[in-house]
Amino acid sequence: MSDLALGRRLMDRLEALARFSDAADGLTRLYLSPSHTRAANALAGWMRDAGLAVRLDAVGTLIGRYEGAIPGMPALLIGSHIDTVRQAGKYDGALGVLAALTAVETLSQAGERLPFAIEVIAFGDEEGVRFPSTLRGSRALAGTLDSAALDERDAGGTSVREGLVAFGADPASFAEAAYTRSTALGFVEVHIEQGPVLERMSQPVGVVTAINGARRFSVVVQGTAGHAGTSPMNMRRDSLAAAAEMILSVERIAAETRDVVATVGVVEARPGAVNVIPGETRFTIDARAPDDAARDAVVDRIDAAIEGIAARRGLAVRTTQTHVAPATNCDAKLIVALDAAARAAGHEPVHLPSGAGHDAMAMAALCPVAMLFVRCAGGISHHPAETISLKDADAAMRVLMHFLRAFRA
Amino acid sequence: MSDLALGRRLMDRLEALARFSDAADGLTRLYLSPSHTRAANALAGWMRDAGLAVRLDAVGTLIGRYEGAIPGMPALLIGSHIDTVRQAGKYDGALGVLAALTAVETLSQAGERLPFAIEVIAFGDEEGVRFPSTLRGSRALAGTLDSAALDERDAGGTSVREGLVAFGADPASFAEAAYTRSTALGFVEVHIEQGPVLERMSQPVGVVTAINGARRFSVVVQGTAGHAGTSPMNMRRDSLAAAAEMILSVERIAAETRDVVATVGVVEARPGAVNVIPGETRFTIDARAPDDAARDAVVDRIDAAIEGIAARRGLAVRTTQTHVAPATNCDAKLIVALDAAARAAGHEPVHLPSGAGHDAMAMAALCPVAMLFVRCAGGISHHPAETISLKDADAAMRVLMHFLRAFRA
Repeated sequence: MSDLALGRRLMDRLEALARFSDAADGLTRLYLSPSHTRAANALAGWMRDAGLAVRLDAVGTLIGRYEGAIPGMPALLIGSHIDTVRQAGKYDGALGVLAALTAVETLSQAGERLPFAIEVIAFGDEEGVRFPSTLRGSRALAGTLDSAALDERDAGGTSVREGLVAFGADPASFAEAAYTRSTALGFVEVHIEQGPVLERMSQPVGVVTAINGARRFSVVVQGTAGHAGTSPMNMRRDSLAAAAEMILSVERIAAETRDVVATVGVVEARPGAVNVIPGETRFTIDARAPDDAARDAVVDRIDAAIEGIAARRGLAVRTTQTHVAPATNCDAKLIVALDAAARAAGHEPVHLPSGAGHDAMAMAALCPVAMLFVRCAGGISHHPAETISLKDADAAMRVLMHFLRAFRA
Repeated sequence: MSDLALGRRLMDRLEALARFSDAADGLTRLYLSPSHTRAANALAGWMRDAGLAVRLDAVGTLIGRYEGAIPGMPALLIGSHIDTVRQAGKYDGALGVLAALTAVETLSQAGERLPFAIEVIAFGDEEGVRFPSTLRGSRALAGTLDSAALDERDAGGTSVREGLVAFGADPASFAEAAYTRSTALGFVEVHIEQGPVLERMSQPVGVVTAINGARRFSVVVQGTAGHAGTSPMNMRRDSLAAAAEMILSVERIAAETRDVVATVGVVEARPGAVNVIPGETRFTIDARAPDDAARDAVVDRIDAAIEGIAARRGLAVRTTQTHVAPATNCDAKLIVALDAAARAAGHEPVHLPSGAGHDAMAMAALCPVAMLFVRCAGGISHHPAETISLKDADAAMRVLMHFLRAFRA
């Protein structure tokens, strides 16, 4: 297998799946769209060809089961999602589903049965582009989804329920979608890193320690608008200059704590004219960390810095929390197992947090979860330029094979 | 005259003129609009009542002449503009025109003739709201306006020329609008400060030393967009954090040089999402000073700071100059005369630059210019809340009367 055969098979499947797109140019595959249907049908065919028992659950998750040594054993779940953002890359989500399929197919073709079943999972609603809420597939499977989530409507007025029927799923069987702890041994998700760390460390794979929790804030700085020519510098209450100082404090404070990130992505100065001192400036803060306490400590320090800057400059500031989600720890036993598998495959795996959210986050409510990150070029994702190398695809496959063969419930 | 009678007459006229508005709510009087026509007609009536000889020039400037001791003497020009921005205050422009009218009316009613003529000037196009370029009235009078400026069109497609005919002016007489140096002794403009300095110094009036020159720039900072969760702080090239540092350097460097102001009024981070590190940030710089060399030195230092920040952070930056206008010095002899008049009226006049542009700027091409600033509440202008006190209006009138009676060509 030094011929990259597994990696090549995986890359070929990624190309094949990427052909199912709602858009003529580029890859756009939204939840329950026509291209999602076609992708799921193709995937179901590949699963059946690989000897898996295929079913579609109530919210459109495609599941292919490969029995263990004795039929009916509890299953290890492996997979990710097959929906995409608009103008997406080919790897986000699809990599985890097709790596799982390729692994099980390899076992199946060799007639190799493990002391547990494996289920290949293809969730359909991870990106949250079409409907207001998201993670419907993993939350339904974990038993944490409220059935009201099926009544949400997209911008065109179509409900999730209507979309599911068109997709070929049976929303009436919603109650049966949830797994129980005894039937699910764990959930393992292979995913592109979507960040620059593995590339910087020159490693093909990384083991995720936790999925970052996040808090988001909206900040409004209230100064006094004024004529850019007639207000001397020492008589100004410039909301944008104050906000600039606050934005730098967000950057500085986050950088001082390991694994914490904080970002100002949106800024608006009002009234927004070249010759007017901005009277009001609004900006957002997104703070994330694998550890909620560390994140909260950073948020508290940022908050104190913002208040201090406003007070010193004689401005008013109002900070409102707009979003909060706790961090999800990956399972220690699975982390150790993935680490050992990576070493067995000849790699020195980087341990890192996941800054982005994933289905594993929702699955943690059901069972132990773990994630294997694969290096992606330039850390770029959610973009047509998203890519991984054949060599790294092969490395990920080898790690996954080692992991599966060594796994014990 | 300790009864504020002059101030009261001026304030009453300001209220009366403010009734001519294109908008039902608030004051909006654009160049050559119906309300400009009505305002000019009312003003012409008041001029005639005060014994002035009234005429309208080719570009809609209303001129009322009060002869000196001997008819036909060179004239001191006093005035400002009667057009406004949208949702304007009642004092910007109108104060200078009506103070001039009230002063001359006072002389006329007393039968007092001076050793020079006085012309009360009401320009119509200072705010530049309706047509692309502006200062048509003062530039035409100074002889620096190209006749092509009459072919400009407003958003509705009406040309200046068409507007002038509807207004009752004769654009064909354009060539006769220009004064010569021998007929214009000087131009004196009374105007609200539009800034906070006089209020801060507790003085009703100030003498303008120069009208600030300005340079404007557009700055584009190019970093790398990235996922707010997956990019560690030390691997980012965040264009907004860099821009924040640049914005603070603009503020700091301008504050270090007396009378120089620099403002960032517009900022935009792209793509502009709460969870995306901004890949590109654009902002504007507006730098002004009464002295061009001082302004240019500050601009050079800002430029060096911006380049240094970009280099240190590994980002690209592109700065483009979008506007440049030299400073206009007020005439030393007129400054001294206004200063003496203010002292004679019992005030300690502040000497300060004008941060905003004024008709005096264009008039400087024709003759010596000077400006008397009047304290306005909170430094607020271009807003319905713009206001001056009756007491300050009276103070300005007394200074102007002292000035006129002492003036010698």
